[in-house]
Amino acid sequence: MREVGTIGELVNKALKLSDPRYWLARKVEVRGHEITVEGKSYETSRTLLIAVGKASVPMAEYFVNKVPLVRAIVVTPVFVSLRDAEVIVAEHPVPGEGSLRAGEVVVEALKKEDYDLVVFLLSGGSSSLLELTDMSLEELRTLNEKLVKSGLSINEINAVRKHLSKIKGGQLAKLSKSRVITIAVSDVPGNDPSTIGSGPTVPDTTTVEDAKEALRRVGLEGYEKYLRETPKEIDNSDFFLLLDAMTVLKEGFSDWLVLTSEARGEAKSLGLFLASIANSSPSTGISKVALAGEPEVRVEGKAGKGGRNGEVCLGYYLGRRVKDFALLALASDGLDGNSEYAGCYVDGELYLDKGEALSALELHDSYGLLERYGRAIRTGFTFTNVNNFYFLLRHSR
Amino acid sequence: MREVGTIGELVNKALKLSDPRYWLARKVEVRGHEITVEGKSYETSRTLLIAVGKASVPMAEYFVNKVPLVRAIVVTPVFVSLRDAEVIVAEHPVPGEGSLRAGEVVVEALKKEDYDLVVFLLSGGSSSLLELTDMSLEELRTLNEKLVKSGLSINEINAVRKHLSKIKGGQLAKLSKSRVITIAVSDVPGNDPSTIGSGPTVPDTTTVEDAKEALRRVGLEGYEKYLRETPKEIDNSDFFLLLDAMTVLKEGFSDWLVLTSEARGEAKSLGLFLASIANSSPSTGISKVALAGEPEVRVEGKAGKGGRNGEVCLGYYLGRRVKDFALLALASDGLDGNSEYAGCYVDGELYLDKGEALSALELHDSYGLLERYGRAIRTGFTFTNVNNFYFLLRHSR
Repeated sequence: MREVGTIGELVNKALKLSDPRYWLARKVEVRGHEITVEGKSYETSRTLLIAVGKASVPMAEYFVNKVPLVRAIVVTPVFVSLRDAEVIVAEHPVPGEGSLRAGEVVVEALKKEDYDLVVFLLSGGSSSLLELTDMSLEELRTLNEKLVKSGLSINEINAVRKHLSKIKGGQLAKLSKSRVITIAVSDVPGNDPSTIGSGPTVPDTTTVEDAKEALRRVGLEGYEKYLRETPKEIDNSDFFLLLDAMTVLKEGFSDWLVLTSEARGEAKSLGLFLASIANSSPSTGISKVALAGEPEVRVEGKAGKGGRNGEVCLGYYLGRRVKDFALLALASDGLDGNSEYAGCYVDGELYLDKGEALSALELHDSYGLLERYGRAIRTGFTFTNVNNFYFLLRHSR
Repeated sequence: MREVGTIGELVNKALKLSDPRYWLARKVEVRGHEITVEGKSYETSRTLLIAVGKASVPMAEYFVNKVPLVRAIVVTPVFVSLRDAEVIVAEHPVPGEGSLRAGEVVVEALKKEDYDLVVFLLSGGSSSLLELTDMSLEELRTLNEKLVKSGLSINEINAVRKHLSKIKGGQLAKLSKSRVITIAVSDVPGNDPSTIGSGPTVPDTTTVEDAKEALRRVGLEGYEKYLRETPKEIDNSDFFLLLDAMTVLKEGFSDWLVLTSEARGEAKSLGLFLASIANSSPSTGISKVALAGEPEVRVEGKAGKGGRNGEVCLGYYLGRRVKDFALLALASDGLDGNSEYAGCYVDGELYLDKGEALSALELHDSYGLLERYGRAIRTGFTFTNVNNFYFLLRHSR
């Protein structure tokens, strides 16, 4: 199948451009005792490096041998040994023992070490990977479950979480005795710094009263005693966005029609919509569409081996009438849903039984079906996350 | 609100270009006894004019005073008197007494009149508006309900319907003693002539065996006795596509990014996706997006006053973060869902309570909410149908 070449190249290109090292090399210069980020320079002879999130390992790697380190703490969901750094494995998407230990180590280091600059490397997953609170892990988990089921909005839930934490909502920056520079890889639509990893180094726009009001409204006032105020002003902290999905799309796919970096809506519906773009292509002349985002899958009851990208591909398969297009759906972190795959693709030569495709969608078993046809893509964990990419392109038959 | 002007202009422009008279004047020339359609000429001194569908009245109007008429029969869902034509009001979307009467009148005319050319003007809704079968109306309705609930695919159901009918699937053309020219307004993705109005004048690709097999598979073999074979070859019939949504988009919106004319997927998800295009616009530079199609609404249980366009608008409202865009959603036939509205719009000045918007989606009461905020658009029935339009555009705040 000739398309395997093209698909493979696309996967490689998207992942290469999603690697924070590519962007650190371009945007961050370390020369002797000076770190320059996007034109702004910082002197340091004793750097405390803290890296948290899915991209923590490659981000830390870039700095470890360049800056004059006091100490480097790396909190990651997947263990990799890194010379001259303490690597702590923590839990995601729900905080675990590792998350609390990481929180303790980071807070202790900020209090006790002798540093003149904190380089804080932040990426997706940090909200769960790094935590410290007066609650026990058991209590924290119970409350989290209750919050998710409470009917509170995601913004309200995040306000509660920030005020239960000793790290989130700007509190980490307040613990620092020196300037903090945050360099972030965003997986959040709109890249709001107070949302990426729950904004540990930027002022919080929500108040302890907001959190109290939300807890009371859903009968959880028993947890009020754990709430604390978050900083509204922080003067020792600078925030830099290193990379998000749009950065990747603009860098590598400038000759494509780039529609959005924050696609939403039902995964199957996104697939049907992309099929409709392909179907109309003889009239519109559109031949290459690139986008990113996080479409949703609503699982009710049991799920097979599936993920949002699998359902985007099956929706596309069911909707396409024009066959000279291929769709690639790829999770930049290498993990789609509960499968071992990063994504999948549909090309003109794929033939599925329509009933089978519908049933795989209903049972959320998209990869159970697509792997049998050799259309599932395995990359392993990529040590970054800028959300999911979708590439729709005309190919020759 | 300054945007009302722009929205109103867009509605007018889209509806003007969806009017079949605009395209008939450009594509069909009638001079004396000669009718020329897209370069192909037909001599006639005794024309039998049959117009069926949502656009039947304006289409017939164009011809009535120009061609040498033997007789003109116009089958429409909404009555309008038309000089020199017999206007029959029939039922849509489920066939009724009017549909069967229309079928009888049309078949009789084809058999008895003395004509040398049939001009057959076809548009959306014809499948239900024009029918003739050996079944009683009651039986026809019962079977239709059973088919819809049977689990058969839409293609299988259409195969059964064609073989139960004396008109669908090319049979109307076979009844004609002279050449038939069909001029069609399409509301069908892909514009397959055998699908538009169930293809009364084009060869059928399905067989009576397909229909039998489908009926047997779902335990409806009792209806087999009504099945009849449809023509596989027709040599007296020419088909011309006059107009579809893409024709409108390419004619009037060539400076817009035209994505597709056959959008599918969940209506709310389409709205969320269009919001994501607006949200990313500062990076992509996209400022005007035009598309058409038929996104879906799944109603389970009771519905308020709602429609697909209402749900696209509410999905868009919930997803947009960027406020300098407006979205217009418009049914080209003037009828969205069970409301009295054609569509609606969301602009930067609209503020809805998020809970209200979510609940209007859940209760399928989009217009119940949007009309209170003056964002519902009423056009009345437009006497055409090329499906729904969606226009997303940047506006000044």
